[in-house]
Amino acid sequence: MAKKANLGAVIHGVDDMRMDQLPFPPAPKENEVLLEIDCVGICGSDVHVLAHGGFGEYKLRKPMVIGHEASGVVIAIGPDVKRLKVGDRVAVEPAIGCKVCKLCKTGRYNLCPDGIYSATPPVHGSLQNYYIHVEDCCFKIPPNVTMEEGALIEPLAVGVHSCRIAGVQLGSTVLVLGAGPIGMVTVLVAKAMGADKICVVDLVQSKLDLAKQLGADATYLVNKGDKEEDTVRKIHQLLGTAPDISIECTGAESCVRLAILATELGGVVTLVGIGPTNMNLPITIALVREVEIRSGFRYANAYPAAVAMVANGTIDATKLITHHFELSESLDAFKTARYGLEGAIKVMIHCQPRNKNNPLRKI
Amino acid sequence: MAKKANLGAVIHGVDDMRMDQLPFPPAPKENEVLLEIDCVGICGSDVHVLAHGGFGEYKLRKPMVIGHEASGVVIAIGPDVKRLKVGDRVAVEPAIGCKVCKLCKTGRYNLCPDGIYSATPPVHGSLQNYYIHVEDCCFKIPPNVTMEEGALIEPLAVGVHSCRIAGVQLGSTVLVLGAGPIGMVTVLVAKAMGADKICVVDLVQSKLDLAKQLGADATYLVNKGDKEEDTVRKIHQLLGTAPDISIECTGAESCVRLAILATELGGVVTLVGIGPTNMNLPITIALVREVEIRSGFRYANAYPAAVAMVANGTIDATKLITHHFELSESLDAFKTARYGLEGAIKVMIHCQPRNKNNPLRKI
Amino acid sequence: MAKKANLGAVIHGVDDMRMDQLPFPPAPKENEVLLEIDCVGICGSDVHVLAHGGFGEYKLRKPMVIGHEASGVVIAIGPDVKRLKVGDRVAVEPAIGCKVCKLCKTGRYNLCPDGIYSATPPVHGSLQNYYIHVEDCCFKIPPNVTMEEGALIEPLAVGVHSCRIAGVQLGSTVLVLGAGPIGMVTVLVAKAMGADKICVVDLVQSKLDLAKQLGADATYLVNKGDKEEDTVRKIHQLLGTAPDISIECTGAESCVRLAILATELGGVVTLVGIGPTNMNLPITIALVREVEIRSGFRYANAYPAAVAMVANGTIDATKLITHHFELSESLDAFKTARYGLEGAIKVMIHCQPRNKNNPLRKI
Amino acid sequence: MAKKANLGAVIHGVDDMRMDQLPFPPAPKENEVLLEIDCVGICGSDVHVLAHGGFGEYKLRKPMVIGHEASGVVIAIGPDVKRLKVGDRVAVEPAIGCKVCKLCKTGRYNLCPDGIYSATPPVHGSLQNYYIHVEDCCFKIPPNVTMEEGALIEPLAVGVHSCRIAGVQLGSTVLVLGAGPIGMVTVLVAKAMGADKICVVDLVQSKLDLAKQLGADATYLVNKGDKEEDTVRKIHQLLGTAPDISIECTGAESCVRLAILATELGGVVTLVGIGPTNMNLPITIALVREVEIRSGFRYANAYPAAVAMVANGTIDATKLITHHFELSESLDAFKTARYGLEGAIKVMIHCQPRNKNNPLRKI
Repeated sequence: MAKKANLGAVIHGVDDMRMDQLPFPPAPKENEVLLEIDCVGICGSDVHVLAHGGFGEYKLRKPMVIGHEASGVVIAIGPDVKRLKVGDRVAVEPAIGCKVCKLCKTGRYNLCPDGIYSATPPVHGSLQNYYIHVEDCCFKIPPNVTMEEGALIEPLAVGVHSCRIAGVQLGSTVLVLGAGPIGMVTVLVAKAMGADKICVVDLVQSKLDLAKQLGADATYLVNKGDKEEDTVRKIHQLLGTAPDISIECTGAESCVRLAILATELGGVVTLVGIGPTNMNLPITIALVREVEIRSGFRYANAYPAAVAMVANGTIDATKLITHHFELSESLDAFKTARYGLEGAIKVMIHCQPRNKNNPLRKI
Repeated sequence: MAKKANLGAVIHGVDDMRMDQLPFPPAPKENEVLLEIDCVGICGSDVHVLAHGGFGEYKLRKPMVIGHEASGVVIAIGPDVKRLKVGDRVAVEPAIGCKVCKLCKTGRYNLCPDGIYSATPPVHGSLQNYYIHVEDCCFKIPPNVTMEEGALIEPLAVGVHSCRIAGVQLGSTVLVLGAGPIGMVTVLVAKAMGADKICVVDLVQSKLDLAKQLGADATYLVNKGDKEEDTVRKIHQLLGTAPDISIECTGAESCVRLAILATELGGVVTLVGIGPTNMNLPITIALVREVEIRSGFRYANAYPAAVAMVANGTIDATKLITHHFELSESLDAFKTARYGLEGAIKVMIHCQPRNKNNPLRKI
Repeated sequence: MAKKANLGAVIHGVDDMRMDQLPFPPAPKENEVLLEIDCVGICGSDVHVLAHGGFGEYKLRKPMVIGHEASGVVIAIGPDVKRLKVGDRVAVEPAIGCKVCKLCKTGRYNLCPDGIYSATPPVHGSLQNYYIHVEDCCFKIPPNVTMEEGALIEPLAVGVHSCRIAGVQLGSTVLVLGAGPIGMVTVLVAKAMGADKICVVDLVQSKLDLAKQLGADATYLVNKGDKEEDTVRKIHQLLGTAPDISIECTGAESCVRLAILATELGGVVTLVGIGPTNMNLPITIALVREVEIRSGFRYANAYPAAVAMVANGTIDATKLITHHFELSESLDAFKTARYGLEGAIKVMIHCQPRNKNNPLRKI
Repeated sequence: MAKKANLGAVIHGVDDMRMDQLPFPPAPKENEVLLEIDCVGICGSDVHVLAHGGFGEYKLRKPMVIGHEASGVVIAIGPDVKRLKVGDRVAVEPAIGCKVCKLCKTGRYNLCPDGIYSATPPVHGSLQNYYIHVEDCCFKIPPNVTMEEGALIEPLAVGVHSCRIAGVQLGSTVLVLGAGPIGMVTVLVAKAMGADKICVVDLVQSKLDLAKQLGADATYLVNKGDKEEDTVRKIHQLLGTAPDISIECTGAESCVRLAILATELGGVVTLVGIGPTNMNLPITIALVREVEIRSGFRYANAYPAAVAMVANGTIDATKLITHHFELSESLDAFKTARYGLEGAIKVMIHCQPRNKNNPLRKI
């Protein structure tokens, strides 16, 4: 294969992202595939790496390509690849487990202590023209799914995982805390699973308006000083009952508290938003009501369902995309995402000319 | 309360149904409510009682009011009733468990050996003007749900129970065997739970056409002499894969066999249609593939979700209703249902003037 | 039935328990049975009622008979009783759900908002000679189970419920926080469910010694000022690994924290001990490790398994009983339990002459 | 590493097993380990391959080393091996999934369509002196577990998987059909999981006697002509109730029928024994009682629990071993196993001098 120019967005340090010319990847080995990346969405964690030089124990120690919400087209395959072929359009799952530890072997590879994850330091991400990945983490998308939607499969997979962990089912009443991208995908997925009523709470009315467009039945604008019991009562009024399930997508202590306090006897709180290590929580209220506090960390085995629901038209995730940029404009794209400029929810970066790889639907 | 005339459809014996004047019920006791019945759908099991004088070990030994798919309006309440009040419109769940056996206390009251069930001999059914039932088996329907839909909650609850037992979830691929009323509600509910692709098989093309209108992605017309392997291959082609889940709604040995043979490695077959006691089944094919064979018998705790999905517009069950009759025309109604006259799927009997109890939506 | 003297232990107010002559109960109605109470164990919650005049929102407003860990003999039955007969020896489950709410109908009657519970104000308890209860909450014990063991079924049921909620299974590694009566029954039940290794932590060495006799594989004496990371490391060393499951039986914030910090990736913390409403918890450590925080509140459907494991000899719960008193000595019994005199773990009160109702095994 | 003589038991065709000198294995690659095999048990499927030249679609097409119930000692490791080191004593899990298909990634590698399994044609087995395997399928056994017990981990894992699939739990009442090696391990594991009462049925009294020694509470000798209803009634009498769970370990149609007919309302039948493809089954009896028919095929993630329960003394599996042979005597060993000579249950072949690798316990 002829080597081509490979531009990538590289974080060199805190607040230091550069567009670098990267080497064209080597030929894919074993079960690897070489992808021409098409679209990459920006996630809050990408912005966090840029702003803080890593997260948690994962510190940036050398320059790293950013980006992990990607779609691409297979342009070469390794010798052991069986399910994909050149020309296949795929959504890229950034998590690769070790495949041999107890967690991987029981299907929970998202918790694999030896796993790697694109754009979690020191592993390079996918915001570049060409990218190597393993076959089993590339999920074919059908012709009616656009490459932009392919890049949205990653956040949708977070929603699928969270809603599965939470046990959303036909008739569930769901409280979603936070109307950022993860709150939004949670609304979309919970509806697709048959949730009866969904109430979303946030501090920003415009986000709540979008949540309503995406399927929320009710929204509630909280104010920082509101008394907990008032907010809980209001949520119960809006839903007509206490929620069976609350899904926390902010990481704020006040919202985790609300989730616990608002949830029905015997219900489930699921934590998704990551916040400070310690929180002061009304845990005994959970105990005497047998409210379970579960957590959804990334996703496992969620891509197939996410692809299916986009492909069959159950959900339209494109409403999440508020901004489009070219790969070369990545610095502006990150600025827009970081500061929420112009009401940014999901910012999409195009590494290829628009619609180059969209055979049926155009954007 | 002034006593009123109470007309009812009474089975006196095989092929002997009569419209009898029945006593007006006594005042409701304890947690009982007195209902003015509005709509009653005819179920295959009602027809079976008329044609065979009972079913299984439940033999008709004295005249019995038939009917168990009912909606009504509360017109009086017993002294211990807490959640319902006069004027409430309700869907009637015909199953009442003993509430104290091991099965009832673990939530599986549909299997209660001491439970009763409307219109299963010798317990009178609800196809009459007035009917007494217990509060906890009457589920309030909101104003936007019609009484006809209220009567459809019963078959929908069968679909909810079956799909729950089967484990239908977001992204499931589902094979439904049989496009009668139960196959139809299974399609509706499976879609509402997020099933990706549903294929329905039947011997009658017109039923398959309706299944498609209700949401089936594919249908397949089987012929009695078809070879199993051909049918399985065709189903796999239509779905693009083997189904994760097969739901058997016919009770025919050939369909149970197909369900087992067609289902994916590690998948689930759920039996709903009741057929002959013994069947010749490829059980070892199930074993080496760990295909579970589960069963859904009636329903338990399924009414709330069924009411919710009708009320929130997720499903429109009214397409199932092909015929309407007055209570006084019950004999004709049963003839239509029994012989499938004029393409009958679901036959609805109105015990009250149309729309009398439909405040918002009319039919 | 001839009326007999009925002595009972009545809480009149804070620190005011009196032995009162109570009326002999009326004839049992419907599904009620009249019991001659034999043994009653003292629970921490009984002591709490005496010391604080109730708990939580359940305040003592009038004198109330205390006691809820009881065994007895049926001496009369109501007209609807089917499974019990006069002479049957039973363990008494103190929880009675309303049987008609959503929680009762799905098998979670322990959460029933309309349920009652013996000796939770204002419902009278069973520490008296004669006591009326409903049939379905009285569980027959076979002849080889003593009445003392019958009274221990209640705390064992707490252990069964907690270990079920926690998901203890063959090969589980379990951390138990607290070596009081609930920690002890948790050890017994977890072992009976096939737990591989169990480590118990407490502040008191003598309790740890008893835990080891009951089956704990390791114990660890914590000191109030110990650093969390040191304690966690020590627990991991003792178990040879991080525990899959931690069961918190103290209600202390420090122990809930330890449970969260010590538990394996993807594991489960189960809260049983009730403490202060709010706690400062390392919740984000749970989130990123998908450690679920579940709760066990009382029990539901746990008596049959608890009776079975005592009857078949899997566990010997009698080691928990450190003190015996006559009914007339109840004030001393409570003092012993309240202040943990002479190393008291479980204090048993005998309302009948010893062994009167123990046909096979004597104590 | 110096190459050594490597004797192995090779099936060349139907009834043609030979002791061949095999090449010493090459150096282990990647995550492989080289094992000195110590003990290998003979399984019914090994005998089946010898007697029929394969099973199902797996036909012997070229000579194949037999054996898959093995223990060994690590004598060399590949460059990527992390958890094992030279000298480690291990139980060998013969199943290796592809690690990338949907089933492997959800933890069900036993169903992997691309997986391999030692001694299932054409994959060589472990009945030889030296054997290469992958690290993640070798489970370290502690010093107090003998190599003979290490070889028994494989059948015990079948029992663990079956009992997990069946949902055996504290207090379960279990019917085991068949008292061969799999029936026996099922008894051992079900007891270890807390089963209350276990009844075993078989056609041979001596096997039932051993089942009783291993922990069965009751046994029942069936005769070929017995009427089903009589056998069911007898089983219910012996257990004092209908079993919650029946585990079928024979593959005989009559036993699958008994399992379905005997099981409690809402219970579970689990099929383990493989028999003819088609069977005539009372499936409608299962349906109306919601008796689930599940299957256990081999095992997945079951070795750790099996090792743990042997290591901690919960079970003593050595009673299953009725015969011992040297590797060179493999032909005699297979004859003994095949024809059940001298009451053979489990026949063990020693590839090393006895106790060479048993540091603590000797046999």
